Amino acid sequence: MSAVSVDRHAARVRSLLARAMATGTERVPLADALGRLSASAVSSPVDLPLFRNSQMDGFAVRAADLAEGDTALRIVGEIVAAPSDPLPLLAGTAVRIMTGAVVPEGADAVVPVEDTSVVDDVVTIHRPRRSGEYVRDRGSDVRAGTELLPGGLRLAPRHLAVLAAAGISEVAVRTRVRVVIVTTGAELVDPGSPVSLGQVYDANGVALDAAVRACGARVVATIRNDNDDADHLHDSMVEVAVGADVILTSGGISMGDHEVVRDLLTPLGGRIGHIAMQPGGPQATGSFEGVPVISFPGNPVSTQISFEVFVAPLLREAAGLPAAVRAPLVLAGDLVSVPGKRQFLRGRTVAGGRVEVVAGPGSHLVASLAASDVLIDVPEGTTELKAGDTVETLAL
Amino acid sequence: MSAVSVDRHAARVRSLLARAMATGTERVPLADALGRLSASAVSSPVDLPLFRNSQMDGFAVRAADLAEGDTALRIVGEIVAAPSDPLPLLAGTAVRIMTGAVVPEGADAVVPVEDTSVVDDVVTIHRPRRSGEYVRDRGSDVRAGTELLPGGLRLAPRHLAVLAAAGISEVAVRTRVRVVIVTTGAELVDPGSPVSLGQVYDANGVALDAAVRACGARVVATIRNDNDDADHLHDSMVEVAVGADVILTSGGISMGDHEVVRDLLTPLGGRIGHIAMQPGGPQATGSFEGVPVISFPGNPVSTQISFEVFVAPLLREAAGLPAAVRAPLVLAGDLVSVPGKRQFLRGRTVAGGRVEVVAGPGSHLVASLAASDVLIDVPEGTTELKAGDTVETLAL
Repeated sequence: MSAVSVDRHAARVRSLLARAMATGTERVPLADALGRLSASAVSSPVDLPLFRNSQMDGFAVRAADLAEGDTALRIVGEIVAAPSDPLPLLAGTAVRIMTGAVVPEGADAVVPVEDTSVVDDVVTIHRPRRSGEYVRDRGSDVRAGTELLPGGLRLAPRHLAVLAAAGISEVAVRTRVRVVIVTTGAELVDPGSPVSLGQVYDANGVALDAAVRACGARVVATIRNDNDDADHLHDSMVEVAVGADVILTSGGISMGDHEVVRDLLTPLGGRIGHIAMQPGGPQATGSFEGVPVISFPGNPVSTQISFEVFVAPLLREAAGLPAAVRAPLVLAGDLVSVPGKRQFLRGRTVAGGRVEVVAGPGSHLVASLAASDVLIDVPEGTTELKAGDTVETLAL
Repeated sequence: MSAVSVDRHAARVRSLLARAMATGTERVPLADALGRLSASAVSSPVDLPLFRNSQMDGFAVRAADLAEGDTALRIVGEIVAAPSDPLPLLAGTAVRIMTGAVVPEGADAVVPVEDTSVVDDVVTIHRPRRSGEYVRDRGSDVRAGTELLPGGLRLAPRHLAVLAAAGISEVAVRTRVRVVIVTTGAELVDPGSPVSLGQVYDANGVALDAAVRACGARVVATIRNDNDDADHLHDSMVEVAVGADVILTSGGISMGDHEVVRDLLTPLGGRIGHIAMQPGGPQATGSFEGVPVISFPGNPVSTQISFEVFVAPLLREAAGLPAAVRAPLVLAGDLVSVPGKRQFLRGRTVAGGRVEVVAGPGSHLVASLAASDVLIDVPEGTTELKAGDTVETLAL
């Protein structure tokens, strides 16, 4: 069994998940739409502003009434920002008006209160005004039918604000990719529980759950199989597969005698293989009840890096999130790498924009991964790099 | 009343919110800790690995037993990754072992299965092995008592993974800043409801709710006051202020006759003033039942930009989120600005990294704000800029 390249396996995973990534559409209230991806362009059902209104607190007037020097106008009423249907303004009169209030017919300018003098029911205006001054015309921001937002936009507060302003209370967004997480291993126990010799705390369930959510997808179920029984795993997966777009598994796909995911997937036509990468050599793909299964090895570092390399880019894309940053960085020290394997070494950026390797390549070094901020992507053919060499890095 | 500078008002807001930003601590399950800020450094209660275990599927052996050329060893059993307390390995024997399983006392190396030949209960190993080969020592990743994570770290999946691996099921994080949102205006109706002349849809409630959450804070209540009655507003705020760190209000602080927030805050010693900025001239600060109140003008664009300028940086800081990106960009066209006011014009980055102004400065232009991706920060003293000039921008 010859090892498959990382790029080839990534392409296989992408092709398997193509349907899962072609998410559907759902309508959600604006309060639930933050960060979601608009499903289609949204047009305004209304003009904005909805009606001609005042930009200032002051007096609505007819500009033609105002002469050079002072003009005195009788104040005939007040229009506040509230439901109102004011009478038309007659020549020679003014109406007190608040910001946002309906400008009455007949009036064509607003004079700010600070530019006027008021005595009893007479306002004096000290100079002429342009028609339209301090008046916001109906539709001057948006005409009904105009596009407010394009489709495929990650919705930020200002986008939700314009929808609300146009009276829209819910919006069609792309559904999130629904993910089932399966961790396997007879050695696994829940963090916080007592542990006996031979047992380890299940870090993969926590890591994959958080990583899936960080990529904008939704975890619909998390299963742990701790009895190495493929029939039992099958039964527990049947219950949740129906509501899933993707199933991610960790563990149970290597060369040992007790490989529950291998035992499950093999009769279903799954492909269990070896990828020319470290960590994360064993990888598998398959299909369960029509749902694509992407299987990672069980070492926590292998699981997390496999997810980052093969699945995270696809989930981020489906959610409209930017891809993880890839950048060349200069090595702070020497490194060696295994021939014939693409290594994803844990790296930490240090002063001067350099990157140093955090501890060794061991796939059990969860603390080293936690202390890293990039993966250093060392090509298959490279076995040695020197301080000062440039390496490709993938931000965590 | 002379206008206060943006920087001075920002400093006042920062000082008022200092206590709100000094968030407390709460313990949350790992599943709820993604993106939260660790309250303090976390040390490992255990060694990691928890016990000496195998890095490969293969055979645990005594390295001293292996001669040059072939060595045959009797297979005395099997150790799987599961709870187990294996017997010590005797000289001249080997034990079948799975990845992650306990390496028995006496054994000091693991030989990968692919490097062995097995006939019945005898395994032949073809060359000597170093002591320690393919064995992961207890504590080789982390010693009990070692710091796993520093305090003040925004928790990513890999951080939660190392906590889980160390058996930790919950973590102390900074509490989120608790925000009450108050929108005011007799003209406001809910998006989705019928609207009559003089009424507008409340965009500020939606915008502030989303913006607060986008800054990592928590909205504990949203109130709308639509009757301009300060006593009524007072009563509705009393109910929610007790659980709040900050109260944000929109509207009701300008020069009109019906200014409900002004009427509420003035007798409580609030400061209603004018800031040398556009949009967002009127701004107020105060205290309600011991909770700081930051008040924005009610035009939706003014509200959103006021929030971005005065409050968002503080909430992001409290949540450990990076500050919004400030960057110099080259203007794609000319612009004019009001003398004596710092303008925050809506801008859109275009080809070549340039920025163009989106529509005019009107504070009612919610669609223009939605179509922007930066604010162009034009200093008070600047009234005119030309295409090709460099301007400071603040990413939205």
